[in-house]
Amino acid sequence: MPSLTQSASPAREPGLVAAFDVLGKRWNGVILASLSQGPIKFTDLRRSVGSITDSVLTDRLLELIAAGLVERTETGGRPNRITYALSQQGQAVQPILGSLATWATANLQAPAH
Amino acid sequence: MPSLTQSASPAREPGLVAAFDVLGKRWNGVILASLSQGPIKFTDLRRSVGSITDSVLTDRLLELIAAGLVERTETGGRPNRITYALSQQGQAVQPILGSLATWATANLQAPAH
Repeated sequence: MPSLTQSASPAREPGLVAAFDVLGKRWNGVILASLSQGPIKFTDLRRSVGSITDSVLTDRLLELIAAGLVERTETGGRPNRITYALSQQGQAVQPILGSLATWATANLQAPAH
Repeated sequence: MPSLTQSASPAREPGLVAAFDVLGKRWNGVILASLSQGPIKFTDLRRSVGSITDSVLTDRLLELIAAGLVERTETGGRPNRITYALSQQGQAVQPILGSLATWATANLQAPAH
């Protein structure tokens, strides 16, 4: 007879919930992946992400900055170029996202099956 | 001047989108984590997951089974015990989810910051 308690849920759960809150939100994974190429201007990032609107991309960038995953930099010159880039924390998650993508490609059946 | 094209988004994106479609959905990460303890009955799984309702847990289990991550087994005895367990594909993602949780705990700032 299995011994099951209310604490069967592993301690990693709070971390996973926090991770998916940010990474699982529509566009955020794609935005982080696009930023993995290096610092990028807003207009180039929007083109890289695809069919996202300016307002939604702005919203998502502010979220990712608030979560500490993305950094916004102004050159201060003329013209004052503004770029977005992964923070150290954002860079740290890249190999994990790569593993997740590899796993999904190999193992995940399409929902239509 | 950076050379940016529409293909700057890495090829891993379709995999990530598919992964987050399943793993990022509310409860699914917690359900998979609870299943990592081994085969479990519905009522014990519900208790392990926490404040989820029967109907939502049923819905999520059907999704995870359809995605090939969870398997449902009937013993066929009397009483006919039904258990849920990770499939081989579901087991394969566990270490990645563990890495993700570790990263989140170490790096992710709370959204309220």
